Amino acid sequence: MIRPGPEAERVALYDTTLRDGMQGFQLQLSGEQKVRLARTLDQLGVDYVEAGWPGANPRDTAVFAALRRAPLARARLSAFGATRRAGLSCAEDPALAATLAAATPVVTLVGKASPWQAEVVLGTSAEENLRMVGESVAHARERGREVVFDAEHYFDGYAKDPGYALEVLTRARDAGALWVTLCDTNGGSLPGSVATATGAARERLGGGVGIHCHNDSGLAVACSLAAVEAGARMVQGTVNGCGERCGNADLLVLAANLQLKCGLEVLEPELLERLVATSRLFDSLVNRAPDPQRPFVGQAAFLHKGGLHAQGTARDPRAYQHVDPSLVGNETRTVVSDQSGRSNVGAKLEQLGLELDRRAWGAIVDRLKALEMQGWAFEDADASFELLVLRGTAGDVVPFSLQESLVVAHETSAPRAEEPSRDVQASVKVAVAGVVVHTAAEGAGPVEALDTALRRALTPHFPGLAAVRLQDYRVRVIDGDRGTGARVRVGIDSSDGERVWTTVGCSANILQASALALIDSYEWAARRVGGPARLSSSA
Amino acid sequence: MIRPGPEAERVALYDTTLRDGMQGFQLQLSGEQKVRLARTLDQLGVDYVEAGWPGANPRDTAVFAALRRAPLARARLSAFGATRRAGLSCAEDPALAATLAAATPVVTLVGKASPWQAEVVLGTSAEENLRMVGESVAHARERGREVVFDAEHYFDGYAKDPGYALEVLTRARDAGALWVTLCDTNGGSLPGSVATATGAARERLGGGVGIHCHNDSGLAVACSLAAVEAGARMVQGTVNGCGERCGNADLLVLAANLQLKCGLEVLEPELLERLVATSRLFDSLVNRAPDPQRPFVGQAAFLHKGGLHAQGTARDPRAYQHVDPSLVGNETRTVVSDQSGRSNVGAKLEQLGLELDRRAWGAIVDRLKALEMQGWAFEDADASFELLVLRGTAGDVVPFSLQESLVVAHETSAPRAEEPSRDVQASVKVAVAGVVVHTAAEGAGPVEALDTALRRALTPHFPGLAAVRLQDYRVRVIDGDRGTGARVRVGIDSSDGERVWTTVGCSANILQASALALIDSYEWAARRVGGPARLSSSA
Repeated sequence: MIRPGPEAERVALYDTTLRDGMQGFQLQLSGEQKVRLARTLDQLGVDYVEAGWPGANPRDTAVFAALRRAPLARARLSAFGATRRAGLSCAEDPALAATLAAATPVVTLVGKASPWQAEVVLGTSAEENLRMVGESVAHARERGREVVFDAEHYFDGYAKDPGYALEVLTRARDAGALWVTLCDTNGGSLPGSVATATGAARERLGGGVGIHCHNDSGLAVACSLAAVEAGARMVQGTVNGCGERCGNADLLVLAANLQLKCGLEVLEPELLERLVATSRLFDSLVNRAPDPQRPFVGQAAFLHKGGLHAQGTARDPRAYQHVDPSLVGNETRTVVSDQSGRSNVGAKLEQLGLELDRRAWGAIVDRLKALEMQGWAFEDADASFELLVLRGTAGDVVPFSLQESLVVAHETSAPRAEEPSRDVQASVKVAVAGVVVHTAAEGAGPVEALDTALRRALTPHFPGLAAVRLQDYRVRVIDGDRGTGARVRVGIDSSDGERVWTTVGCSANILQASALALIDSYEWAARRVGGPARLSSSA
Repeated sequence: MIRPGPEAERVALYDTTLRDGMQGFQLQLSGEQKVRLARTLDQLGVDYVEAGWPGANPRDTAVFAALRRAPLARARLSAFGATRRAGLSCAEDPALAATLAAATPVVTLVGKASPWQAEVVLGTSAEENLRMVGESVAHARERGREVVFDAEHYFDGYAKDPGYALEVLTRARDAGALWVTLCDTNGGSLPGSVATATGAARERLGGGVGIHCHNDSGLAVACSLAAVEAGARMVQGTVNGCGERCGNADLLVLAANLQLKCGLEVLEPELLERLVATSRLFDSLVNRAPDPQRPFVGQAAFLHKGGLHAQGTARDPRAYQHVDPSLVGNETRTVVSDQSGRSNVGAKLEQLGLELDRRAWGAIVDRLKALEMQGWAFEDADASFELLVLRGTAGDVVPFSLQESLVVAHETSAPRAEEPSRDVQASVKVAVAGVVVHTAAEGAGPVEALDTALRRALTPHFPGLAAVRLQDYRVRVIDGDRGTGARVRVGIDSSDGERVWTTVGCSANILQASALALIDSYEWAARRVGGPARLSSSA
């Protein structure tokens, strides 16, 4: 564990995803999910996990109870709370009592570092605010807790009244706060002013300074790094930069920058490789599609789309990559797209482990370009690309084929009805293992009916398909200006619990586009679970 | 227009969304969409619009032709290209010729500013690379073009061999490049080293220095600002930070920071208000859900989720906001009183010119909340919102209603066929003017068949509908993790040549969602073209 002080060579990581991060728009985690994320952060190796604001909501209280029963292995657990209310004693303040009742080794208390905020927002005097800070920190220290003091609005406060802002920090430190965290609460500061004000705090306090930035100017990571350069030795942030308004500083991006760019040790090198997995787990828990562009951890962070860049990267990975992606658990990817040529296709084949005569590459490029002109996109659909290659290979046996489908959707009342009509049916004829399976299903919509019928036809022959789940279904209208005659591209992510694969289908008929993507998904899986079982009936 | 030089007080904005931005993962724009975005950027007031790489793909060539026929009003149009290939003369290089053939006032040429890149990636000598830079810039200047030289890998090059990197810049300037842009191509630089290397370039060249950053370290905006502080007077970036890998610097965030934080003039203040609209248009064109957290322009950028922050903001907006959101065209939102609050509904009614008893507002709020829980979104669908209000008003007469629909889609061959099957039919029963019209139509897909049947039923009664065209048709999957059972939201923009209106439909059945949005569109128009013509037949 990192202890603050002038001798510290490391920078402590303080995660506030479970508290400040959860102020983010449309974010919600259950208590169980919060505990799971806390353990994942612990395994990543962060120094502090702030798990919530006990008393502010019952869910957080339950999270702390669960973490008391089975404590984290290495991270220090913190409970968040505010300094006592104006006019009350610490002993009288029920919110402060609730924070302490979580019985965590660390307590993080927030207080105002700006007289304007104290007066206008809290409705109290600047003098009483100073007493609130000192007394609250002392109150927690007297109860044996390590105290982190979060100096809210420190940078705006410092800009208006540096003397007062520094006095707030001093009161917290004198009362026993191990760390004093400088907060850019409104996220509007620029790195230069953050560096100046952090330097002043570092000089006043001698050490034990933390930084907590918001991203309202798109500068949360930069301001955090500027603060570290000026002497801060603890950075607060959240997974994937979630948080109120524009979010908090992205703790994973900060960790990667500090370790790989600034030469400061924050995580053990082999744990740094968990950054990608941690990022993905968070998105999965909050049910959000991962941002492919996210620095270091995004699926496109080391992806090369264009001909020149893909060629350059093939010559030397350093040509268009700022760090080795494996250090953070990511990988170089090359996509096939309408800007691609033979070299991209070759790199892709190699990446997928497909061996193919170089003379066959040209035919694949031509086929890709023709399909892309029609609106297909294979850059994200590795499984469909693989099938495209395999189906053109001499001697390849396609495991099944859809011969006929019929979809009937009948609405017997005005569609203004609250409940969607259920009279949607699909029937399919699928050729598999020398027989034709003819079956049918219904669904809430025609795509679901078709999907259910397909599965019903295939699963008896490929029992492994029973484990396949569709994780995401996307529809993109390609030429929406053609109205309802527009072509659509359907993308599907599937998983069997171990692997995830992506397929694509494209057509002016959304049912056909969906069928193409579904068939690719099931065929990709069927090719892996082996040939069809020899069943005598047609199910 | 900003001209470079030591006297320049302003910072020029150079947009490369249409070229470098389009290297982004899963991004595609049609030629028409590119032209529309170029005009929107022109109206925003950016100084340069780089519209593509002519010759690299046929689509970009068409975009330049369209912009030649109807030029931009104020922005200078640039065509991108590379310096000549090693070993060729400029006159012999077909790619350079294609760039010049776009006949734009500005040509942007990219060349390597690192000997390692020249040798390893281009496979040529550092000396030949210098000649390529100088001769290519001179070649374009001799043909009367303003030249921007993009010094690729300048910062990595400067770190390894500052003398060579600066010599590349000098060759470009000596050959006549008005602007020399320093590119952090791999996106790995930190603001401090960007400032140092930019200062060196500024000192060598005396002025006319631009900056082009990528976001691989999450620092693209910060590095761009550091370069401006060190003397750069042109910033390159993309709308919403789209671009290869982790994207380019977000030009909209940069514009807001430069103008509101750094005191540099980049846009006329009343044009700065268009930042939000520009950001939303881009996401709409690429059919991507806007990032609510995006600095300045995101829908959550000034949103206060509740509790202390909402209360504080109510006392004084500056309590938790770094700038006045109206300056960038955004607004303060609080979740409790927002999405469906009474005051919002009142403002919306007023905006639409609908008079309604205040006592009726509560019922509308309740209905909106219920629909939003199911995945509806009326934020952009004013026409559907208006109909929602009208339909609940006493004495309102609905001009028509869909009583029954039947869609049959029959595929008689494997869907792998190149041509979509045409045996897709829809029949509808529509009650209008006391009669029931029963008719049918076919289409490339089921939504087109349904649309065509509806129009066939309605147009004889509402001849004005013949002029209605669907301008855009969008599908957004709401809960894609439910696979093909996911709910979808369909949005439709319609126009009669004068007005444009937007409608929405939502269902787990894409046919129903589409029908709801189509019916709203036609009903909105039908209410304006007057009551139904009294026809005796049922068409």
